[in-house]
Amino acid sequence: MSKYDQLKQEAYEANMQLPELGLVLFTFGNASAADRTNGVFAIKPSGVPYKDLKPEDMVIVDFEGQRVEGKMRPSSDTLTHAVLYKNWKEIGGIVHTHSTYGTAWGQAQKDIPILGTTHADHLTVDIPCTLPMSNEMIKGDYEYETGLQIINEFVKRGFSYTEVEMIILGNHAPFTWGKTVQKAVYNSAVLEECAKMAYLSLMINPKAPKLKDTLIEKHYQRKHGANSYYGQE
Amino acid sequence: MSKYDQLKQEAYEANMQLPELGLVLFTFGNASAADRTNGVFAIKPSGVPYKDLKPEDMVIVDFEGQRVEGKMRPSSDTLTHAVLYKNWKEIGGIVHTHSTYGTAWGQAQKDIPILGTTHADHLTVDIPCTLPMSNEMIKGDYEYETGLQIINEFVKRGFSYTEVEMIILGNHAPFTWGKTVQKAVYNSAVLEECAKMAYLSLMINPKAPKLKDTLIEKHYQRKHGANSYYGQE
Amino acid sequence: MSKYDQLKQEAYEANMQLPELGLVLFTFGNASAADRTNGVFAIKPSGVPYKDLKPEDMVIVDFEGQRVEGKMRPSSDTLTHAVLYKNWKEIGGIVHTHSTYGTAWGQAQKDIPILGTTHADHLTVDIPCTLPMSNEMIKGDYEYETGLQIINEFVKRGFSYTEVEMIILGNHAPFTWGKTVQKAVYNSAVLEECAKMAYLSLMINPKAPKLKDTLIEKHYQRKHGANSYYGQE
Amino acid sequence: MSKYDQLKQEAYEANMQLPELGLVLFTFGNASAADRTNGVFAIKPSGVPYKDLKPEDMVIVDFEGQRVEGKMRPSSDTLTHAVLYKNWKEIGGIVHTHSTYGTAWGQAQKDIPILGTTHADHLTVDIPCTLPMSNEMIKGDYEYETGLQIINEFVKRGFSYTEVEMIILGNHAPFTWGKTVQKAVYNSAVLEECAKMAYLSLMINPKAPKLKDTLIEKHYQRKHGANSYYGQE
Repeated sequence: MSKYDQLKQEAYEANMQLPELGLVLFTFGNASAADRTNGVFAIKPSGVPYKDLKPEDMVIVDFEGQRVEGKMRPSSDTLTHAVLYKNWKEIGGIVHTHSTYGTAWGQAQKDIPILGTTHADHLTVDIPCTLPMSNEMIKGDYEYETGLQIINEFVKRGFSYTEVEMIILGNHAPFTWGKTVQKAVYNSAVLEECAKMAYLSLMINPKAPKLKDTLIEKHYQRKHGANSYYGQE
Repeated sequence: MSKYDQLKQEAYEANMQLPELGLVLFTFGNASAADRTNGVFAIKPSGVPYKDLKPEDMVIVDFEGQRVEGKMRPSSDTLTHAVLYKNWKEIGGIVHTHSTYGTAWGQAQKDIPILGTTHADHLTVDIPCTLPMSNEMIKGDYEYETGLQIINEFVKRGFSYTEVEMIILGNHAPFTWGKTVQKAVYNSAVLEECAKMAYLSLMINPKAPKLKDTLIEKHYQRKHGANSYYGQE
Repeated sequence: MSKYDQLKQEAYEANMQLPELGLVLFTFGNASAADRTNGVFAIKPSGVPYKDLKPEDMVIVDFEGQRVEGKMRPSSDTLTHAVLYKNWKEIGGIVHTHSTYGTAWGQAQKDIPILGTTHADHLTVDIPCTLPMSNEMIKGDYEYETGLQIINEFVKRGFSYTEVEMIILGNHAPFTWGKTVQKAVYNSAVLEECAKMAYLSLMINPKAPKLKDTLIEKHYQRKHGANSYYGQE
Repeated sequence: MSKYDQLKQEAYEANMQLPELGLVLFTFGNASAADRTNGVFAIKPSGVPYKDLKPEDMVIVDFEGQRVEGKMRPSSDTLTHAVLYKNWKEIGGIVHTHSTYGTAWGQAQKDIPILGTTHADHLTVDIPCTLPMSNEMIKGDYEYETGLQIINEFVKRGFSYTEVEMIILGNHAPFTWGKTVQKAVYNSAVLEECAKMAYLSLMINPKAPKLKDTLIEKHYQRKHGANSYYGQE
């Protein structure tokens, strides 16, 4: 028994959803869930196949990236998660995948343009894709720098991490987050679907225009605004 | 017990088919079934995951969009359904999805051209895609205006809603309908398959010509004409 | 009990494989199996969903297209099957699908070029795609003319139906056949896979050359030649 | 009972994974596992459908390609496996598939460019694609020459087979290998995923640049280098 059993269970279930949603092959992804009271998060151990994963395998790590509980080595991306949790106080879950279409946009080094209401139901801007990291950052503390790069990209673009809950690392792959790890998983699937739809739209019509502002506003607000009327009260 | 139990069951089953047919991700879709005698329809509650859905969750709404029975908030697209039921007296079911290929054509703002007999087995014209809605309509009663836009598009094109049972909203996604909600679900899958086939055809041959009139006529008539010989008598 | 029970079972199982192999949506396909001794074939009834199909529903038809046994109306494509069985004495099964990639090539009105050994393992030429049928043929006995068109295409190209067991009808969809209906089903899946691979190859490299003659010969002969060494003796 | 029972079981399980991972249609693939002590490998029998395969069906063959044990004819690609085992002393398993995207790159006669970290997590160079084989080699001992062609391609490029565990035969399809047959299966799935991602990336951005050297180095080393920190210790 551990005081983190529930947190581990939550992280475990989120990790298991990734292959079910078709978002990861083998071990190409990880999810974590944070406990803000205790200043820790539970994350997938590194390189363990999903089919062998058990809730108790989740590793408990603090926001400096130090292991607090657990016998296994945490995900190699753990420091990226830690940096985001430390700096963005309102997020409770993070997911990293190499989902096929999202990763392809990252390899193409392009933002995913906002072309329709499926996208606008979730965010009002293009899904951001960073430039490849500088050589200095890569050769430094790579996973820590990856977290900083995400935060800096948001500063540079003037984005709020509570409104835009996803990013694609150039040449790498998507990261998503949310108030809960369930929301972060949901956002990973939304990113992948928007990535596929935008790809197909531009193949059909390379001049497909961006969604007009009024439609962006309408769809985002009806789901997320003060007077939203989507979902149950 | 409610006098609408059967109607709810019908709407419920249609909604459950949408993820089974691969037409919706999460809650990105809804189906409704009408009871013309009582002037109401049963529709999916807003934002409830398909796996949690139960027949008794369906909300009963009249053709003005007013809730008649049910504790939950109906789909945010309810007014669009209501407008269509009110104006098109012969339809008994409506389905809205954000199916991947159909939505991509909507984002590309292009009609799906009639390129083969798979398409002509179901309709004799390109699958219509509307222009994006005007700012006035978007800022007005959006979902009500969406219904009007569909009806106006059919008037403008001179289409019959009993012959053409599908449309794509520009920048948004498909709506389909039919005499029954089962037929509307079927039409959603047909639209998605035609959308995918047309996409691939134009990638292989950007100059692929439209289907010739005689083949359109032959395939449509053998399935839907007075002397049709498809299916069982 | 009927003397055709085994034939019906064979046709039934072949039809059921089509949705399992992802080759048909709803009722968009049919398979038939011939009994050469009695000069008949068993074919799927028209418009019956695969999930409702039972072996005893198969309809027995002679090579003139006349129903010999069975209460249901046979597939609307029955006359095409009949023409092929009547003219091509060595085939024992026929399959028609609207499989996605194969149909896209038909809509593009292009032969599927032989680009690799996957294709050459099964046939030594491009998978033929006919021109759209003439208006006279369409307005005539359409399904009968469809059968004639297939046969004429083979005469025109100098193809042997025992070596090339597949064709795509321009603007329509694939037909495949073989010594048995199992082989015809197999060929439908092979056509779909070759269609997808050729599509992707030409997207990656629009100038991808055709497979060289020596490789075509080698792969075809090792599987089908007098000294074949593929499979068990 | 045979002293090769465990080897057969290992080869059998690897073969069964291929259709589960969506890497083969029908019998279009084969896996083998080597026993270095006894100088033999177990390989799939030729042309036997995966659903009928049993562990005891695996055929034991020596590194000259001679059958040592088993009643069935081994895979028609057996000599290619034998040549690789004989020349590359450190490999313990080989897999050959006609996986869709990997084969499409082979038909396009193009190396799969290294565009992202998913690729760099596994190898530091483009996935090599050979030229089509010369007519002399094709007309000679084809499968033996195929093995030689793979080895010569590695010599020509200066690649190490312990670092680059995959190749695509031009106009044909992928071969992968590894210390164990499990690793070879894993590599086949990795190749297919990289093939799909590279395809999509270049469709989105035909000028997508190759991954920068520092990122290649970082991702490869953190998984495979002396100081790797991926996976469990």
